[in-house]
Parts: sequence; structure tokens; C-alpha cells
Amino acid sequence: MGGVITGVDLLATAVFAVSGALAAAEERNDILGFILFGTITGIGGGTLRDLLLGADSVFWLYQNEYLWVCLGASLATWFLAPQFNSLQKLLLWADAVGMALFSVLGAVKAIQLGAPAVVAIGMGVMSATFGSLIRDTFLNRTPVLLAPEIYVTAAMVGAVSYTLLAFFEVVEAIALPLAILFGFGLRACAIIFDLRLPKYGDGR
Amino acid sequence: MGGVITGVDLLATAVFAVSGALAAAEERNDILGFILFGTITGIGGGTLRDLLLGADSVFWLYQNEYLWVCLGASLATWFLAPQFNSLQKLLLWADAVGMALFSVLGAVKAIQLGAPAVVAIGMGVMSATFGSLIRDTFLNRTPVLLAPEIYVTAAMVGAVSYTLLAFFEVVEAIALPLAILFGFGLRACAIIFDLRLPKYGDGR
Amino acid sequence: MGGVITGVDLLATAVFAVSGALAAAEERNDILGFILFGTITGIGGGTLRDLLLGADSVFWLYQNEYLWVCLGASLATWFLAPQFNSLQKLLLWADAVGMALFSVLGAVKAIQLGAPAVVAIGMGVMSATFGSLIRDTFLNRTPVLLAPEIYVTAAMVGAVSYTLLAFFEVVEAIALPLAILFGFGLRACAIIFDLRLPKYGDGR
Repeated sequence: MGGVITGVDLLATAVFAVSGALAAAEERNDILGFILFGTITGIGGGTLRDLLLGADSVFWLYQNEYLWVCLGASLATWFLAPQFNSLQKLLLWADAVGMALFSVLGAVKAIQLGAPAVVAIGMGVMSATFGSLIRDTFLNRTPVLLAPEIYVTAAMVGAVSYTLLAFFEVVEAIALPLAILFGFGLRACAIIFDLRLPKYGDGR
Repeated sequence: MGGVITGVDLLATAVFAVSGALAAAEERNDILGFILFGTITGIGGGTLRDLLLGADSVFWLYQNEYLWVCLGASLATWFLAPQFNSLQKLLLWADAVGMALFSVLGAVKAIQLGAPAVVAIGMGVMSATFGSLIRDTFLNRTPVLLAPEIYVTAAMVGAVSYTLLAFFEVVEAIALPLAILFGFGLRACAIIFDLRLPKYGDGR
Repeated sequence: MGGVITGVDLLATAVFAVSGALAAAEERNDILGFILFGTITGIGGGTLRDLLLGADSVFWLYQNEYLWVCLGASLATWFLAPQFNSLQKLLLWADAVGMALFSVLGAVKAIQLGAPAVVAIGMGVMSATFGSLIRDTFLNRTPVLLAPEIYVTAAMVGAVSYTLLAFFEVVEAIALPLAILFGFGLRACAIIFDLRLPKYGDGR
């Protein structure tokens, strides 16, 4: 199953790299700004995850395919983005896909290292949210995370689903896509139907 | 003395988690936003400290009580914060307590690893300020750190006091509370009496 | 050649520390704010580089000269900055020098560890840009990086030049200054002649 997880990881990296490049597009950056922010956003969440899990060195040092994927995704965004009417909408959806993928991958990696459930869930939520946090923070934008629709909750749903499925020893080939679907599904509903949790101070 | 230090560390984590959740309250986040920002703020400073000191993995991976403390503190803030008139004031004081605790703990950990005095002091100041920096940066707020009243100085006083007391081999049971008191005392005076160091450009 | 590289590293650290302290000056910080932001900016890029390259602990823990250099550079800035008419211009140039030095040093360290070319270049660009990113992000300023003139490109030119020269086994004593000159030269031209790459959306 290692191959599948690496594949999903590369996909998540590409999707987040696109979202970073799209955010650079909104700031009207030049092509190297695209590549820099695409790369930071693509590998940021996974880098934090690996540093925190105590890996000897970060994954993309000896697996350069991650850097190439970020480069390719950023360049593709530069050339293809003008075809789209609404960058903001595209960014929102790329971010949602990346978030769902990373929330599950964070939990996968923590569980592989034998971490307890609460750590696996926390790691999933952090991997999923950190990439988008640094993208928006470095670009001086209001974090997508703080948008009124459900976001962190969706990341948690992805991480919790996978942790539960792993606990019941559901095979990876089912647990992985199912958990990603749950996380992405909730975020998608939140975007489409404008779902919100009660805010602090509501109705008081 | 390991138990006491762990206890102080948990207390500092809880206090900073409360300050993170209060900052989330000011941004009118939902309950999972509370938990995320509470957790990031609570474990952020200590995580940086451990990464920089070259620990194999960060403390909260195998000591989940830290994550539970953050979760509990964030939830407690969600339910109790409405009882208080001024969130901003509460946040200021929670931040002051956490800052004093972390400034001393950073120095403690560095000294335990045999680091020289200048590193112990630097590590104290960084542990104390980093949690509040990332809380305010991620939430797009003006850092408490940049407020006109003395802040970094108080963190340095805490770290320097402990380093000095450790140098003179004062027993932990006295050195620890004394250094925390010095750091917190200066910050408290700064808030109450609006103490300021001369700013760059003053009187020129 | 280790001594020369350490020397260049200390110089780059000092230059970035000055730029951090100058940024603090623009925010009218007090003297400890100068030291904190000078230190974070001075050692930030190198710290990230070391953490990512999987060093056991960060360089400045056991080589305190780096902390002393940051302290000295920050204090010198506090006393000397008022002599200059335009802090902003000084900051721009200090940032340019530090950027060029770090872009080459990042590549040097990655190559010493046997990393492939794409990683060496990526590490150069990240070391060069990260210090200035965190300085500007923490101080709530628009990142120099997002300024319209060429910046990331210059960092890449520095890192690529060194990687190429190292590939052709040019002796360090020539490769090092040459690569730094290329990176700095391009950034200097960009500042003086207001060179820009085409922005996203230009002429569409």
C-alpha cells in the first residue's frame, strides 16, 4: 500500500501547490513568485508533519519528485489559470481537495509510527490546515481557515474517520478513499450550502 | 524535580491555550477554530524550543496529556469566556502568565542540555514570545509583542533570572518560582503602570 | 574552506540581523524588540535550512558566535540607524546583500550533504527568502518578496550559479564569490533600474 499512499501524497502536494500558485495569481506575482508560493504551500503541511514526527530529514530532500510536482503544478497554473473565470472559486475548491487529502495522510503517518489516536487526529488536522495557513499568512490574506463556513471541522472529520477505520482494521484500500470522501464531502457541502457552526457569541 | 517542571509546563500550556482560544473568540470563530488556535498557541512555543534543541521528536507526540490540556483549556474558554466582561483584558493577563512561565522553562530545558548562558537566555525569550507571535500572526492581529508596554524585556528578565540562579546553584524549588515571579512581575507592572522602554526615534 | 564558509555565514547573519533591526526601527520598537527581530531574522533562514536538512540540532546552539553577532548587529543598528536619512533604502540594500549570501550558502550546505541539484537550488531559494518572509510577516509588513522588482529570481540565480559551478568543480574560492556576485548583481540592477518580470495577468 506504500505506493498508493505516496501517490495520494503527491496528488495532495500538487493540489496544494496549485492553490498556492492561485493565491500568488490573486496578488499578481511574477512566475518565480508562483513557483515559490506553490512550493511552500505544496510541501509546507507535510514538512511540518515530518519535522514534528521526528523524521531524520524531510521527505522532499531525497524524494525530489515532490519538488518537481510543485514546479510543474505552479507552471501549469501560470499558463492555465487565465482560462478560468473565477480564480477565487478555483482556489477554494483546490484548497478543499488538498485539505481532505492531507487530513487523512497526516493521520496515516502518525498511526504508522504507532502514535495514539488523539495525536493521529491532531496531526491530521495540523497537516491539513498548516499549508493553507502559511500560504495565506505569507501572502497577507485573510486565512481561508477563518472563513465562516466549516473548515477545521471537515479536516477533523477526515482525520477521525481514518483513525476509526484503522482502529477497526478496515483495509487501507477502503479506509483511505472513504475517509478522504468524508472530509471532502463535508467541506464541499459547507461551501455549497454555506454550512456554519455556531460562532462564538451567536445568540448571546 | 522533573515532576514540578512538567507540572509548570502543563500549566503554561493551558494558560497559552486559553489565550489562543480567547484570540479566536475575538475573531468570532467556531468551536473547532477555538480548539485549533488554542492548541497551536499552547504547544507552539514548546514545539519550536524542542525542534531547535534537536529533540528526536516533539514532546506532545508521546505525552498526550499536552494535547488533552489544550483541548480542555480551549473548551473551557468557549463555555466560560462569555462570563467575563472584557476578553481583551483577560487575554492580556493570560498571555502575561504564559509568557513568564515559558521564558523560565525555555532556559531550564536549555541548561539541562548543557547549553551556555547566552543560548539559555535566547531560548527562554524565544519560547516565551513564539507562541504569542504565531497566535497573533495566524489570526492577522497586531502582535501583543509590538504593543508599547514592556514585553520582550520581561521575557528576558525571567530567562536571565533563572540562568543566574542556576549559575549560583540555587535549589530549583526556589529558583523556579522566583524567576517566574520576576518575569511576570515586570510584565504586570508594565501593563498596570504602562511602563515603556524608550522607543526608537524618541526624543530625536 | 570551512572557515571561509563560516565567515560568509556570519556575515550573512549580521546583514540580515541589521535588516531585521531596521524593520523594527520602522515600527518604532524598543531596544529589546530590535534584538528579538534582529535575531529572528538573522538566524531564521539558516535555522529553517538546518531543520529541513535534518541536522541534529540547529547551528547556533553550540556556536554561540551567531547569537553574539545578531546581538551586536541589532545594537549597532539601534545606535547608528539615526545617522541615515532613509531607513527604507538601507533596509532594501541590507536585505539584498543578505539574500544573495544566503541563496549561495543554502546551496553549499545541501551539496555538502550530497543532495541533488534541484534540492540544492530549492534550499538556496528558501534560505534566502525565509528570513525576510518571517521578518515581514511577524512585523505585519508587506513582504519585500512581493515587491514588484525581481527578488526570488535573483535568489534563484545565486543558487543556480553556485550549483552549476560546483557541478563543473570550479574551486570554492572562485565559485563562492562569483555566485554571490551574480545573485546580488541581478537584485541590485532590479532595485536601481526597476527591473520586473511580467506579472500574472499583464497584457491579457
